[in-house]
This record gives sequence, C-alpha cells and structure tokens, in this order.
Amino acid sequence: MAPSFVINGGDLTAASTKSSTGGRASSVYSEVQTSRIDYALPLPSVLTSPFKIVDGPASSAAGNPDGIANLFPNLFGQPSTILVPTDGEHALDSGRKLKIGVVLSGGQAPGGHNVISGIFDYLQAHAKGSTVYGFRGGPADIMKCKYVELTPDYIRPYRNQGGFDMICSGRDKIETPEQFKQAEETAVKLDLDGLVVIGGDDSNTNGCLLAENFRSKNLKARVIGCPKTIDGDLKCKEVPTSFGFDTDCKIYAEMIGNVMIDARSTGKYYHFVRLMGRAASHITLECALQTHPNITIIGEEVQQLIAELNEILAHEVVDEAGLWKKKLAEQSLQLFDFLPQAIQEQLMLERDPHGNVQVAKIETEKMLIQMVETELEKRKLEGSYKGQFKGQSHFFGYEGRCGLPTNFDSMYCYALGYAAAVLLHSGKTGLISSVGNLGAPVSEWTVGGTALTSLMDVERRHGKNKPVIKKAMVELDGAPFKKFASMRDEWALKNRYISPGPIQFMGPGADDVNHTLLLELGLVAA
Amino acid sequence: MAPSFVINGGDLTAASTKSSTGGRASSVYSEVQTSRIDYALPLPSVLTSPFKIVDGPASSAAGNPDGIANLFPNLFGQPSTILVPTDGEHALDSGRKLKIGVVLSGGQAPGGHNVISGIFDYLQAHAKGSTVYGFRGGPADIMKCKYVELTPDYIRPYRNQGGFDMICSGRDKIETPEQFKQAEETAVKLDLDGLVVIGGDDSNTNGCLLAENFRSKNLKARVIGCPKTIDGDLKCKEVPTSFGFDTDCKIYAEMIGNVMIDARSTGKYYHFVRLMGRAASHITLECALQTHPNITIIGEEVQQLIAELNEILAHEVVDEAGLWKKKLAEQSLQLFDFLPQAIQEQLMLERDPHGNVQVAKIETEKMLIQMVETELEKRKLEGSYKGQFKGQSHFFGYEGRCGLPTNFDSMYCYALGYAAAVLLHSGKTGLISSVGNLGAPVSEWTVGGTALTSLMDVERRHGKNKPVIKKAMVELDGAPFKKFASMRDEWALKNRYISPGPIQFMGPGADDVNHTLLLELGLVAA
Repeated sequence: MAPSFVINGGDLTAASTKSSTGGRASSVYSEVQTSRIDYALPLPSVLTSPFKIVDGPASSAAGNPDGIANLFPNLFGQPSTILVPTDGEHALDSGRKLKIGVVLSGGQAPGGHNVISGIFDYLQAHAKGSTVYGFRGGPADIMKCKYVELTPDYIRPYRNQGGFDMICSGRDKIETPEQFKQAEETAVKLDLDGLVVIGGDDSNTNGCLLAENFRSKNLKARVIGCPKTIDGDLKCKEVPTSFGFDTDCKIYAEMIGNVMIDARSTGKYYHFVRLMGRAASHITLECALQTHPNITIIGEEVQQLIAELNEILAHEVVDEAGLWKKKLAEQSLQLFDFLPQAIQEQLMLERDPHGNVQVAKIETEKMLIQMVETELEKRKLEGSYKGQFKGQSHFFGYEGRCGLPTNFDSMYCYALGYAAAVLLHSGKTGLISSVGNLGAPVSEWTVGGTALTSLMDVERRHGKNKPVIKKAMVELDGAPFKKFASMRDEWALKNRYISPGPIQFMGPGADDVNHTLLLELGLVAA
Repeated sequence: MAPSFVINGGDLTAASTKSSTGGRASSVYSEVQTSRIDYALPLPSVLTSPFKIVDGPASSAAGNPDGIANLFPNLFGQPSTILVPTDGEHALDSGRKLKIGVVLSGGQAPGGHNVISGIFDYLQAHAKGSTVYGFRGGPADIMKCKYVELTPDYIRPYRNQGGFDMICSGRDKIETPEQFKQAEETAVKLDLDGLVVIGGDDSNTNGCLLAENFRSKNLKARVIGCPKTIDGDLKCKEVPTSFGFDTDCKIYAEMIGNVMIDARSTGKYYHFVRLMGRAASHITLECALQTHPNITIIGEEVQQLIAELNEILAHEVVDEAGLWKKKLAEQSLQLFDFLPQAIQEQLMLERDPHGNVQVAKIETEKMLIQMVETELEKRKLEGSYKGQFKGQSHFFGYEGRCGLPTNFDSMYCYALGYAAAVLLHSGKTGLISSVGNLGAPVSEWTVGGTALTSLMDVERRHGKNKPVIKKAMVELDGAPFKKFASMRDEWALKNRYISPGPIQFMGPGADDVNHTLLLELGLVAA
C-alpha cells in the first residue's frame, strides 16, 4: 500500500475541527522556521522618522462614479493620501492610545501574519498602550465579537511565518442590515478606533462598505484595507501588487522547474500543470516567465465560454435536454460540445459563494491530456501520427498558499501593516494601505493609502447593483504578457526551461522580486 | 479556463521526444541554479592526501551464499575495501590514463550529476589524460555503444544541479547472453578500463552481473556501482544511505508542512497526502519525522495484500468470475473486498517491468478519503456522527525527484563519484562505492567499496533464480520507526505539525542531514 498521511488543522479530540486552529504556543519549529522569526525587517525610511500626511485631490471611481457616489455617500470622492518626510514635528499624537481590530478574510496568502505584526509594532512604537484585537475566523467573528487580544508573546511565533493561523480566516461577508448592526455592536462594545481588513477585492469592498456604514452612524471606528491575494488580481497604480503572489509563484515555479528537469531527463512524459487561481492568470503568467514552459494557456485569451456559463447558471434552468445551450454564443457552444463529457460536467458544478465557476475544481490538466489523446488517436487511424504520447497531470495549489513568505512578501506585508496603523492613527477611513516604489530598496518605498471607492465600479450581481473593485486581469497589452508573447514561440519549439529552485532566504536570489512586478514597474525591458 | 502548462523534455520539432534530451549548453539559468554551479564541494580528507587501499576479510552473501557463489563464481567472496591515509607514497599510479564509462540507470534522484563530476574530477586530478564516456539513455546505450565524451565544459553546467539530463537515464537491463555480448563489444570497442553504474538495487545487481561477465571473459573493464534511489531502500551498514533521499524528503516535507499550516489556518479540510515510492516507506517515515502528521501509514505494517496480489498476477489467470481471489489469504481477501471498486481495479493494473504493482499509480489518498466518507455516512445514518468531513487529496512525486540537490546530497554524491573512480583506478570490480561516517564533518567521512555480492540473496523471479540486493524496508524495530512510533499517538490527537520550509543552501538548516540517517547512525536519541 502506498504510504499516506492524514492531516487536519483541528484537534481530533474535539467535536469541532475549528476548535484548535490558531495558537502556535505549543508548536515545534523547524530550524528554518525558527530562523525566520528573528529575520530583521527593514522599514521604508519615511516610517522611521517624522512624517506628515498629505492628501491628494478629490478622487472619483474606476467606473460609474454616480453609482459609487450613491452607494458611498459619505466616502465617495475622498482623497488618497501619502506620507511625506518632514523636518518638523511628527504628525501623529503618540500619546493617543488606540483600540484596533484586525481580521483576515478569504484564502490564505503568505505574509498575512506580517501585516498584523506590522500593525502591532507600529502601535507599540508610536501609540504605546494601544490594544489590538484579532477577530478569529474571519468577518463572521466581527459579527460574533469573537476575538483574541494580541500580545508580543502571542504574535512572536508567527513573525515571518506562513499561514493565517494566528487568528485564522473566514469567507463570510458583512452584507445584510442585521449583519452591519452586529458589526456596529462589536465596534461599540470594544470601543474600536479602527479595523484593518486584510483580504482580496471582495473583502476590501466589504471593508469599505463597513467604513461607509460606521461613518454614516457616526461611530468613531475607521476601516482600512490591505491587499491580499495570491492570485495577484488586486492591483492598480497605487497598489502595485497584492501580498502572497510573490511567494506562491516562486513555490509553484520551483515545482514546475523540477518537473521540467524531469521531462528533460527522461523524455517519457508530457507534463500538464494546472495552478491554483480564479479567473486571472497572473500566477500562470509569472510562473511561465520564471520557467519557460513549451505551451502556456493564459485564461484571458480563452475565457469567453466560462463567462457565458456563469451568466447562464445564475439565471437559467439547466435542462437535461440541453435547451439552455442555445444561450451560448456559437463559438462557445462549439468549444463546449468539443469538451469530453467529464469536463462538461465539471464546468456545470455548483458555483462558489460569489456565483462563479469553481475553477480550481476544473481539472483542466486532465481535460487537455484527454483532448490530445483523442486527437492523436484520430491521427493514428489516419496514418499521420506514429508516435507515443504519455501525459502526466499536476495540480499545484494548497502546497503554496501557506508557504514561508519570501523576503519580499515578509517586508512588503510588514510595511503594509505599519501603513494601515498609521492611516488609522491619523483618522483615515475607507482607504487601502498602499506601499509603492517596490523596485527600489525598502528604505525608498513610498507609503500611503488609496481611496477604496476610487478603485470601484458598479456591477450587477445576482440581479442587484453591487460595488466591486474590478479584478485586475492579465492585460494582453501589458508588459508581462507582451514579454511572454515575445518569447513563447521559441519556448514552444525549443526547450528553454529554467528551474528557479527552492525559495532562498539568504544568498543569491533571496531578495529577487517577481518578474510581473518588475515588468509592470518598467524596471525590466518587456 | 484554469491556466495550464505543457512541458516535455523532447524537442517538439523532432519526431522522437528523446532526441533533444540532455545538453544544457543553450539553457538559461535561474540565479539559484547559477549560484549552485560554483558551490565549493569539500572532500573527505582521506581523498585529498596519500592513501592506501586496505582490503577486509573475505565476504559472504546476505543470504544463500551457495546460490550467490554459483551465480558469481569469479566475484563471490571478494573483500570489501577501505581507503586509509598513509604517510608513504600514494597507492595509485597517477601516470596511468583510464577510459571510464558511466551510466545512469532508473528514475532520477537529485545528485546524479555530482557522482559524474566526482568521477571526472578525480581522474583530472589523479589520472590526467583519462577519458570519461557518458552512455546516453541508460544501460540500453551501453549495448548500442551510444555515448558522449565528457569534457569540463560539458560537465560544468550540471554541477550541483538536479535531474539526470547530462546523459539521461533508462530502465533497460543487460540480461540475455546477446545483451551481455553487446556490452562486451562496447567495452572492447571503447577500450574501457571501467564502468560506473549509478542506480538502485536492481541496477547495482545488474552492474555486478556485468562485472562478473567481464571478469569471466578476461576483459580489463571493471564495474563499480553507486547507490542511487530517492526511495532510500538501498542501504546497509557500509552504504548508510542512497543519494537523492535527503533532497526528496525535504522537498516533500516542505509541501506537507505547508499543507499543515493551511489546515491549521482553515480547519476546513482533512488533507490526505500520498508520496512517491515503491514498497519501502522510508520517504513517508522521514517526512513524518520532519512534519508530524496526525496519521501516517507505513506500508510495511500493511503490505501483505499487495505481496499476495503480485504473486497471483505473476502466475495466475485473473478470471472475471473472481476465482483467482481464492488464492488470497482470508485477511487479504477481506481487505480486498472492502476496497472501493475503483481501487480494486487500480490494484490489478499492469505490472511494471519488474512484475510489481505500480504502486505510484494506486491513488491511496483518494481511496482513504472514500473509505472515510463511507464510514461517516454510515455513522450519520446510525446517528453517531453529526460532523462534516471534507477530504483533500495530494500526490507529491515528480516535483521532487529532479530538485536541486541539498548540500548533503551534493557533497555525498561528489564523494561517491570520487570513490568510484578511486576503486576503478585501483583495479577493483564488483564493488559499490561506499562513503560512511556521514554524521561527522565531510573531512572525516570514510571512503571505500563494498562487495556487491555480499549484499545479495537469491530470489525466485518469474520462475527463475535471480540474484537480488535485498531491498532495505523500514524495520519496525529500527531507530527511525521506533522514534516515530513513540510520538505518533500524541501527533494523532494533538497537532504537533512542523513546517520545514524550503530547502536552504546557505544559512540555518542548510547543512542539516535527514532524521532517518541521524537516527540510524545513533546520533539522535530514538
């Protein structure tokens, strides 16, 4: 029998599998984990000496400003802000103690713990006597007022460590009037000055709705967001990347590089690799730039079918006779009918809580192998193919999103957390923590906050107008894709594999930043 | 559509996928790959100053010495040998030029390239003007006399790199009289003084048969083996570990550790992990010692069923009516019938070239999830279970065996190669390169060769008497298993997860050796 493991985060003696999540006090650490705890994190120099907070001009929205103004009457139009060094007095009153809540929302991304330690360390340094509450288990625990008070000893074992287990995470949203009411009650009960929401596009949108709601009720609690997602689809000029993307791409690229060497050593298999992620293909594109595979499918080039299926499944009855298929565009219908039945069924699987296809569950890599097999079988019968084809499928996902954060993600997250605390300390709300100039040494990074409403558009979801932060998809005229497109023909026919190797924390490569960011910042020629 | 890759080692413009394997001259390297090329490899001090070669007493066999003596009339009983520092003259004539062939046999294991560079560097240093031929594509290319002459420039890009692509590998054996004849012709044609066979238990057995054959024909060519296998099942007192095991366990353990943090962060899934490997569970045991999962299945505890199936499938007709099942022991039959049909079918899959179940293809992790689901469903109906169970399956395999070798595997392989060249230089044959005292600093490692016949027993395979090097299975009274057994009850009920993190080449943890080796050497308390 092939050896196997069973792993579960919960305490198996307890009824609930969530009961023992969180808390590393009793953990045994590996040597690398231990060494990372004391990894010294540099800060942008603007954060280490007196600064003032400079507001920009009034902001608008990414789309439909009237709609966004309607949804955020108190926050719409507020300026983004940036920290500027000053010779004069420090802008913020270090005598003022703050009570801050922090929540992790959505899937894990390496670096989340460092955002929290950044918040904590800022308050320790500049608002001594402040309190940080960690809401355990995501936004649901804001509503339930379930929290842990963070202390230096509690935080210490999580410094520069992967995972979200310091306070865990959850996927609930605060949406209904009752839920907003519960959140208000928690804010009042804990006398919160502020809340930091660490999450992706939906979570930051939700955080902004909470900020709007608190403001409308004249609560003192402010809300600041932080850009988290391994998918890399929450970014804009002011927020050049979301944390976790750097680490995850490097973990996946190591494995892809290893599989490439394997292929080169045997010539026996064609390897088909699928990577975790939703609609945006940033991870795939970055891994391609790091490793140079023969063929790379960028979803943005071929996603029409899924978009149509989403629409249909949200609004139509999927009848056995297949009448629903008439709603598909002809090209999409052809593609759908071309797919093996198993894949068709996967495409019709239940939707995730956002009404989207659960793309991580579509085994594209197996579908492609089947399609190639079918085609080659046909060619064999025709006499035009005599070779042998053996496909080997891979899915790289869960093994990445809780990896030890790279030096970059460790530093970036720490600065994001520090910045979020500064913004709350200065009374800002409805901003997303924004750290920029990331191609430069950390000392030169810029620090500020971007008005969340300025990133938003209005979308119809489940038949209602909803504010959304538009997902940053791979832009087919952007520098990373253009770089890829300029090389892929050569990669297809000649093997130009690169094997990035394991993430290093010291020595060569340890401080490298991912290709996507360097290309988007214009620091590498496209 | 979820993004995907296609990767294949072959040149896609060529008809054969093997045509462009090997050759990194045109490769682009990552920063870490580049830095590894110049990683300075220390040697055991006995290899860096004058030594003499001291033979031990006459050897016997691991079992059935008469049978082994029959199969190896020329080699049986020859002593193992060890290098000893001497104040006097160096034992070997540095004026003598050698022609040495080298072949990689079987699945890839990190460090293979370093064995070759070790052989090469020894000859450059101590037998200037020697020639090294790399047989491309495994033992088949010895028979075909297909080779590449290795040069410093050819070897350089592979130093301390993963994979076997310098000369590729193959799974053929040299078995029939015709095949031995072809190998002899190659030895004569190339005027070989020696051949190094880098492989697992079967490959080393085959190498020893070749040594016996060359000796019986009075060819000058000697044959030396090297212990390669990620599975860790080729080891004995004199050969404390096979190369690749250290690296692979660390790669898998990193991923397992990451999944554990994931589990701890969400409490949503039970993760079931299967690891690459055949019958022996050394990888699983080592990964368990590194990461502390809740439940670990060590195959040696439950392998009776597969052993019986192997026997049946080799000798019986598997009839549809299931009469063949009567050959199973009652306990095994119960287990077989208990298994879901899909798993039963996998167990009956075609055998690999050695007639064994292709265990890597049995999706144990999915089987276990199904079995737990079935049991919990039953308990739900009975009212004794009210929880929710979500299994998530993982298979970690191909992404490990071509990883960048750890510092340990890099150094160990280099010493193994150096030792193999010394043994050939001194005219030895039928030995396996043996580097010991591995818990000490490299300078104190011992170097020698162990008589391959002394590791052998006779087994019936396909109805014939065959010499075999007995696979080293996990010993249930050995130190690594006892250590595991002493802790697993605690791991089962309380989470004691450890996350080893990515392999480091510099800094903390970079020179650590795996637990199995340390425990077997008695350097860590069991």
